[in-house]
Amino acid sequence: MKMGMINLMNDYNTTAHPRVLEAIKAADGKRFTGYGTDEATAATAEAIRSLTGCPDAGVHFMIGGTHTNLTAISAFLRPHEAVVSPLSAHINVHETGAIEAAGHKILTVPAEAGKAKAVDVALACEAHTDEHMVKPKMLLISQTTELGTVYTREELKALREVCDEYGLYLYVDGARLGCALMSEACDLSMEELAGYTDAFYIGGTKNGLLFGEALVIVNPALCSDFRFLVKQRGGLLAKGFLLGIQFGAIFENGLYFELAGHANDMAAKLTAGLIGAKIPLLAKTESNQVFLCVSRETLDRLAEKILFERWAREGEAGTPIRFVTSWQTTDEEVASVLGLF
Amino acid sequence: MKMGMINLMNDYNTTAHPRVLEAIKAADGKRFTGYGTDEATAATAEAIRSLTGCPDAGVHFMIGGTHTNLTAISAFLRPHEAVVSPLSAHINVHETGAIEAAGHKILTVPAEAGKAKAVDVALACEAHTDEHMVKPKMLLISQTTELGTVYTREELKALREVCDEYGLYLYVDGARLGCALMSEACDLSMEELAGYTDAFYIGGTKNGLLFGEALVIVNPALCSDFRFLVKQRGGLLAKGFLLGIQFGAIFENGLYFELAGHANDMAAKLTAGLIGAKIPLLAKTESNQVFLCVSRETLDRLAEKILFERWAREGEAGTPIRFVTSWQTTDEEVASVLGLF
Amino acid sequence: MKMGMINLMNDYNTTAHPRVLEAIKAADGKRFTGYGTDEATAATAEAIRSLTGCPDAGVHFMIGGTHTNLTAISAFLRPHEAVVSPLSAHINVHETGAIEAAGHKILTVPAEAGKAKAVDVALACEAHTDEHMVKPKMLLISQTTELGTVYTREELKALREVCDEYGLYLYVDGARLGCALMSEACDLSMEELAGYTDAFYIGGTKNGLLFGEALVIVNPALCSDFRFLVKQRGGLLAKGFLLGIQFGAIFENGLYFELAGHANDMAAKLTAGLIGAKIPLLAKTESNQVFLCVSRETLDRLAEKILFERWAREGEAGTPIRFVTSWQTTDEEVASVLGLF
Amino acid sequence: MKMGMINLMNDYNTTAHPRVLEAIKAADGKRFTGYGTDEATAATAEAIRSLTGCPDAGVHFMIGGTHTNLTAISAFLRPHEAVVSPLSAHINVHETGAIEAAGHKILTVPAEAGKAKAVDVALACEAHTDEHMVKPKMLLISQTTELGTVYTREELKALREVCDEYGLYLYVDGARLGCALMSEACDLSMEELAGYTDAFYIGGTKNGLLFGEALVIVNPALCSDFRFLVKQRGGLLAKGFLLGIQFGAIFENGLYFELAGHANDMAAKLTAGLIGAKIPLLAKTESNQVFLCVSRETLDRLAEKILFERWAREGEAGTPIRFVTSWQTTDEEVASVLGLF
Repeated sequence: MKMGMINLMNDYNTTAHPRVLEAIKAADGKRFTGYGTDEATAATAEAIRSLTGCPDAGVHFMIGGTHTNLTAISAFLRPHEAVVSPLSAHINVHETGAIEAAGHKILTVPAEAGKAKAVDVALACEAHTDEHMVKPKMLLISQTTELGTVYTREELKALREVCDEYGLYLYVDGARLGCALMSEACDLSMEELAGYTDAFYIGGTKNGLLFGEALVIVNPALCSDFRFLVKQRGGLLAKGFLLGIQFGAIFENGLYFELAGHANDMAAKLTAGLIGAKIPLLAKTESNQVFLCVSRETLDRLAEKILFERWAREGEAGTPIRFVTSWQTTDEEVASVLGLF
Repeated sequence: MKMGMINLMNDYNTTAHPRVLEAIKAADGKRFTGYGTDEATAATAEAIRSLTGCPDAGVHFMIGGTHTNLTAISAFLRPHEAVVSPLSAHINVHETGAIEAAGHKILTVPAEAGKAKAVDVALACEAHTDEHMVKPKMLLISQTTELGTVYTREELKALREVCDEYGLYLYVDGARLGCALMSEACDLSMEELAGYTDAFYIGGTKNGLLFGEALVIVNPALCSDFRFLVKQRGGLLAKGFLLGIQFGAIFENGLYFELAGHANDMAAKLTAGLIGAKIPLLAKTESNQVFLCVSRETLDRLAEKILFERWAREGEAGTPIRFVTSWQTTDEEVASVLGLF
Repeated sequence: MKMGMINLMNDYNTTAHPRVLEAIKAADGKRFTGYGTDEATAATAEAIRSLTGCPDAGVHFMIGGTHTNLTAISAFLRPHEAVVSPLSAHINVHETGAIEAAGHKILTVPAEAGKAKAVDVALACEAHTDEHMVKPKMLLISQTTELGTVYTREELKALREVCDEYGLYLYVDGARLGCALMSEACDLSMEELAGYTDAFYIGGTKNGLLFGEALVIVNPALCSDFRFLVKQRGGLLAKGFLLGIQFGAIFENGLYFELAGHANDMAAKLTAGLIGAKIPLLAKTESNQVFLCVSRETLDRLAEKILFERWAREGEAGTPIRFVTSWQTTDEEVASVLGLF
Repeated sequence: MKMGMINLMNDYNTTAHPRVLEAIKAADGKRFTGYGTDEATAATAEAIRSLTGCPDAGVHFMIGGTHTNLTAISAFLRPHEAVVSPLSAHINVHETGAIEAAGHKILTVPAEAGKAKAVDVALACEAHTDEHMVKPKMLLISQTTELGTVYTREELKALREVCDEYGLYLYVDGARLGCALMSEACDLSMEELAGYTDAFYIGGTKNGLLFGEALVIVNPALCSDFRFLVKQRGGLLAKGFLLGIQFGAIFENGLYFELAGHANDMAAKLTAGLIGAKIPLLAKTESNQVFLCVSRETLDRLAEKILFERWAREGEAGTPIRFVTSWQTTDEEVASVLGLF
């Protein structure tokens, strides 16, 4: 990457938050048992049980989002059981067929602002009636969604109800769960969210860690033998304690939420400025992602100063692009970016 | 783990070598493109191509050994093609069926001191004659083996020849490749080893990194689309640059080999002392693992001062145990351990 | 099933055509080598090579359509490679996730009258750009389609061209290939169709056999080791000669095409009558399936005399139903059916 | 095959028993609902429930042995669960990795006369202690074994007990179950055998049918959604009624057992003659397979008159060969064969 650019490319392009790095440094000279069986990891798992209000949950520290999703689905579903997800879901588009490689079909429902609606989930279930078709058994949604939007309590409750009606597990891909819970648009607490799900993961990679996601298995029926699956899929890190340490640091004194809140604030400021400049947005900004559409001229101008992603090909209204803020984005950077419009 | 114990449990129970941690720290404030597409990773890959004498090799930084093995095998073999490996191979015993979960049968050959012999590989191939049986297509060996022994040039050459005769790829699991190459018993250079293989990986987790293995695909026919497979199996780390940075640091000024050599030296000293004390060894010590057999009384005495692994159940000759040395093991520790016998 | 009903339920509800049964009977007392290695099977395979104008094709006799599709896809594709098919394709809807269970994602394109269009295939390929997404590698279409329509030469040529442009194999699910080739709407010969494909299968189950499909692998690059895959997926019938005998009988003197042509004729007569009676059709009748929409009253009346399938739930225009004709359907039955409208 | 040869090659080289063919012929003109949902199939399933003394069993008619095994294992086991079987088991040697392709590891135990012993099963279970290894969950044995031997009640009871102790399902591959139950060496009734198992299949292909195996799922916990798996693996025959009809015919008036008993009798006569001629046998003849060892001279002489299989390469004691008798083998043929020694 060029030096001196403002970085709105994504939220995973630097090492880690200083307090995470310090926690690793503080472990210098300590010795840990392998594969996440150490005491630091156990303590962090217990902290997460407390934080999520799930004293009996299975908590597993995983190496990344795709790996978490494919391992959980392998563990939870039988071969003929399918996952329902919005068309735009990461598992459906950006995981190179990881779920299918694990043997499971993904049934898609329309994504409205990135979100699945209960009525469409019901329709998908109703359409699968016999043994000539897969059996829908899990609803997978992302919080925040791939468009940076968030499910409200009412929306999540409706999805929980349709899952109960049709016998589906509700699984939340929380790669950006911090930003979701800190969103102005979200009226859910961590505990409430947990209560609506069978399992979900708390993303670390995109909110300050070197790497790692914390999977919380709320439904006790899904807990058994999970570590076998993690090992079988190649995700049981020899130095598993690295994950326990990092998550321990990021949840200390609410740092996780502080970082996510800051990222959201920066995105909100960016959005306010863009709206003021009458730049068309492609989705409502509800977390740390801002989707906008720019002319070719603007695109070229931005590209000289800012790192960002082109979200799709140029259309009639211009080129869709994405700005992602993070715990590292500063007020000055936001001001500089807005100065380019 | 209890404080103050001498740690011979394994070679992956502390964070990382200081120079690795410093390299990560030095990246503070830098921004990297995602998924290992960054320049630091590219430079390290190039260094590994140079180090291995394979200027056209595919080099991929992977998250762990089991994941490397299952991804490579998924990429290299068709569904009916099988892996031949020694009975004691890690993939056969300690990967929770990861290879089978990827769809491939493992055919075992006897392991003599942990090593496969060409004649047994030939027999296994000869026994598979038609479409009612799987088709052997890859020989997988570990260097060092699961018993800490090493293949010599002559042994590896013989295996390469039998692979050529029967159309097998030769793949080397190098979780402890540093210790193998630094072994007194090994007359192979990195370049020579590479030249005999179709692919192999250079283990980082057990020789000073936080985590990570470097897969080197020597055979150009096996290179295509490999990153698709890494992503599909959930191993394409968002912050892939962390692997490029770590391997960059460990290969700088030969640190990788220095650490491995030290571990071997410590094991050699331990071994010399044990032999002097007439303690029966279960295998020749050729790298950083020492296998011995102890009485119940000795076992109890050792367990108060040393962390180590019980390798098998108590037999007539006593209980088999394993000592693993690492770059952190000191002369003082070795002396203390020997003082207990 | 109730006696005396007119059977328009499907084309696989009786044993087999008399000449097929006679051929099996004629084999009484003969002894055959196992697993399709017999001379009768070899002769039939050779006849199919001749019939399709593919002297070097791999010809394999398979036990059923779903099994053929999943085995072929397992054999032809690497794990990250995906199948493109129309949304309504049998593999996507009615095979209980068989393709995903074999590890491959299905990418759907819109189905217009059951058919994929080249432009949509191109769009699907263009949308898959890197290793975060699956790699489209095969286009699978059905001839006839799931709506009984057929691809013309021009349409198939256009699909072949888009496949060539994007490096896709073209595979034709020919469960009802006889009816397709005998369709008035189809200007393709068997040889021409074969020439456009990499592989296709000629359906036997739905056109007079007890069971069986003949897979023709036109592309020599896809032929290797195919029998290993058939065996691995459980489809290498011990008495494989039963398939060679049946296909031998059905292709003798053009019986296969005669039966398909008759089924088409009966559907055409039905259709003409329904149009005359101003019954709305849901698709153009181009082969042996007729899709119509009936009022609740008509539905009840038909259900007393005819066996047929309700294709979807009742909508505003009535209930969609399907009539399937076969080699057994008679003029009298058609007249009786039309008398009910 | 050459005409006029005596056929001891295998028990699946002719079409079917006349009464089976007649039953199919008798269905001429009848119409059946698809996929085994017809009344003939239901009646046969009920007859099998009665015959096996399992009034609540799931009964499924399958297309072949390998397909039955892979489908059952897919349905019964989670991904990390493994099958224990004797080293010589068909699933381990002669199914082209079908079980591994379905994702499951096979753990082998020594085969003594083709049979697993409880003590070895216990050892295999004891050796698998944690999540780094697969979890043994099913014992699969063949009755008769691959060497034609049979498990006695005592042996089966001991295996059931070890299964109960270690939480394994007990599954019996009954490709030649008729010959097992009719064996002089077997003191088990069909009901007793069923009572010891969680599931087993009754082989039809090798005892008079065109094709087909009847899977009986005794354990109610394993019954759910099984038809989904059959369809997903490509084994739900459109004309499933063909299997119901054939099994209906073969179980009528005990024909199944009569045919198997005859095959056993012929093998017993052959064996008596061979023993009289001092020909070394490789295994005790307990059913319809006779394993013997012959000199090169004898081999050549036999090969002129008899079709048989060479079981292994020539060794010091000669060439191991196999004679298989069937319901079609005659006293005259046995006499002729013995005349050649």
